[in-house]
Amino acid sequence: MTDAVLVLNAGSSSLKFAVYPDGDGDPAALLRGKIAGIGTAPVFSGRDGAGHSLPSDACMSLPHAADHEALIPALLDWLNSHQGGLTIRAAGHRVVHGGRTQTDPAIVTDALLSELDTLVPLAPLHQPHNLAAIRCVAASAPGLPQVACFDTSFHRTQDKFAQLFALPRALTEEGVIRYGFHGLSYDYIASTLRAHLGDRADGRVIVAHLGNGASMCAIKNRRSVATSMGFTALDGLMMGQRCGALDAGVVLYLMDEKGMSAAEISHLLYNESGLLGVSGISNDMATLQASSAPEARDAIGLFCYRAAAELAALAVAIGGLDALIFTAGIGENSALVRSLICDRLEWMGISLDDGANAKNAKCISAASSPVDVLVIPTDEEVVIARATHGLIHG
Amino acid sequence: MTDAVLVLNAGSSSLKFAVYPDGDGDPAALLRGKIAGIGTAPVFSGRDGAGHSLPSDACMSLPHAADHEALIPALLDWLNSHQGGLTIRAAGHRVVHGGRTQTDPAIVTDALLSELDTLVPLAPLHQPHNLAAIRCVAASAPGLPQVACFDTSFHRTQDKFAQLFALPRALTEEGVIRYGFHGLSYDYIASTLRAHLGDRADGRVIVAHLGNGASMCAIKNRRSVATSMGFTALDGLMMGQRCGALDAGVVLYLMDEKGMSAAEISHLLYNESGLLGVSGISNDMATLQASSAPEARDAIGLFCYRAAAELAALAVAIGGLDALIFTAGIGENSALVRSLICDRLEWMGISLDDGANAKNAKCISAASSPVDVLVIPTDEEVVIARATHGLIHG
Repeated sequence: MTDAVLVLNAGSSSLKFAVYPDGDGDPAALLRGKIAGIGTAPVFSGRDGAGHSLPSDACMSLPHAADHEALIPALLDWLNSHQGGLTIRAAGHRVVHGGRTQTDPAIVTDALLSELDTLVPLAPLHQPHNLAAIRCVAASAPGLPQVACFDTSFHRTQDKFAQLFALPRALTEEGVIRYGFHGLSYDYIASTLRAHLGDRADGRVIVAHLGNGASMCAIKNRRSVATSMGFTALDGLMMGQRCGALDAGVVLYLMDEKGMSAAEISHLLYNESGLLGVSGISNDMATLQASSAPEARDAIGLFCYRAAAELAALAVAIGGLDALIFTAGIGENSALVRSLICDRLEWMGISLDDGANAKNAKCISAASSPVDVLVIPTDEEVVIARATHGLIHG
Repeated sequence: MTDAVLVLNAGSSSLKFAVYPDGDGDPAALLRGKIAGIGTAPVFSGRDGAGHSLPSDACMSLPHAADHEALIPALLDWLNSHQGGLTIRAAGHRVVHGGRTQTDPAIVTDALLSELDTLVPLAPLHQPHNLAAIRCVAASAPGLPQVACFDTSFHRTQDKFAQLFALPRALTEEGVIRYGFHGLSYDYIASTLRAHLGDRADGRVIVAHLGNGASMCAIKNRRSVATSMGFTALDGLMMGQRCGALDAGVVLYLMDEKGMSAAEISHLLYNESGLLGVSGISNDMATLQASSAPEARDAIGLFCYRAAAELAALAVAIGGLDALIFTAGIGENSALVRSLICDRLEWMGISLDDGANAKNAKCISAASSPVDVLVIPTDEEVVIARATHGLIHG
């Protein structure tokens, strides 16, 4: 029997999972998978540790229109009964919001769940699903230790200027501050810096997490100093479907002049903006790169211009730049995006090796570049697996 | 008789004016003044060309609770009858919004006024007062030529990436773009760059207009390339009472969780935030500098941190920085603010001469500083006077 840790990342209509051996060090996943289409027509897909798709007869049969409440017990049952030799010893969850107090992963207790419930208004699109998954596991497998890992925790090392909005103190005190997100990804990248950068690992580093959701983090001594996302995951960089930084006056205009409700504005800014809104074509960077439409060029150009501007703003928080790390879907795979961003930053000492960039090499800066530019694949699941193992055996 | 140009800047409760000789070159004001408290208890104050306060018997007697409609004819009458020897030949107005089409000052016609009326929803707090003043002058002095000078015009040289939000194209096409403001101030500063910087005048310059309203503009070849204010005058830098850049998700939270109306949110973000909101003490930088309260230090520190970050972001648009210009109330007078901003930008080649900075000298950068740092008083009225003279004699 292999003792294992189950990692869960529950969204509104999807449930991602990964299974790791319950061991020390830097474990490799035994299994990764996803159930998509939850609530409508759930579809299971999975890969084994070597990256091979699971044969269809190894896949779960899923009840039609099932929700998380039905699927999580089915997943646990399937893992225990069909993946011979696995014993799930603990579950680790990605939880979007840990508020001001959760500065590290934490063992789930009733008290913690109650505290995390109070944060739902701060992340209404994600937090309820994260907490529902924890409760489903508790109901299906009473006594199984669970650990919550927060996307906000990594940023709690920031000083007050990086976290404050210029709002009345009463709002700040009730929690309207810049929390920042993608903390599990930044935590992973920070954990690799020593191996990649040696002594420069403790220097001035900016990590560009560019996926369908996108943010940047300024890091010094491998700790977060400032980040582009704010109170919500809407702020900062332009994203696949999200607007990123937007004049608050635009929201007032949409209310006043167009009579839009909060729900309508939220849908517009979270789902119809970003690359999709500007291009009118797609939220997917690869699709836009393959398009010859001028609107696709505009969307890519704006994405990169704004990313470069955000990067320079973040450099202020750490007093300049020694290394720039690209990660996540776009960051790891789009040579075009990396070059368009870096071309605007030559004055900051960034210079690419075009050949290395075209090949998505690990180091893509020119030998003469004062700033090192790296491409490092992120791995949020392994951060959760490590933390879960550490806490349940600590 | 001295032919003169009247310059008017009409706000919601104040009317500022200046009178210039109707001549070429760089005229000096003959008279400057202000009527404050319009709508409640109007108070007149004025200074002559040498800067001396006008004696009280030279001041207008003002009807109680008078509005613009009553005060503008009284002002014109007072100028013509009591300021012996002045003949007002034209009036030039500051108009906050010229939309996409008004790229230069323009002679007022009925067609122009109709066009400017359509922009009221884009600047509801300012545009109606600007246009009301033009109509009052037309009614009081039929036939007097009038010129409108727009705070947005200077920025219409920007490329599309500097003007676009990451919103659906339909919104962009209906005018939800980054217009930028303070254009008359930037225009004035740009007109002085050759005298101050010689050949570097056409280089990479950032102007920090730091007053109770505050913004920055990145300039190259003396033209606007990017600016911090957006669709409205709420975006960008932290200001005296305005929040500046704010996660749009905060506005959604205020609607959803706190049940606030658009009017309530607008009041919060325009009138209760910024230096006032963070300090809980005052919107006035000098008052905060004189305070020993930690909240006052926080407000000043956040103002300067965010200004430095915005500056670095704007430098991306012009590919680095050759010169930084401070102007407007805070920019011209606060050595502390200038030093706190510049201390965060040493990595960009900015280094101050502390003695020169303390004296508000014209050049405050160290001799060894790669970036020139200057303090240049702004003068929006003279830009309007010049444009008005030029158009009515053109």
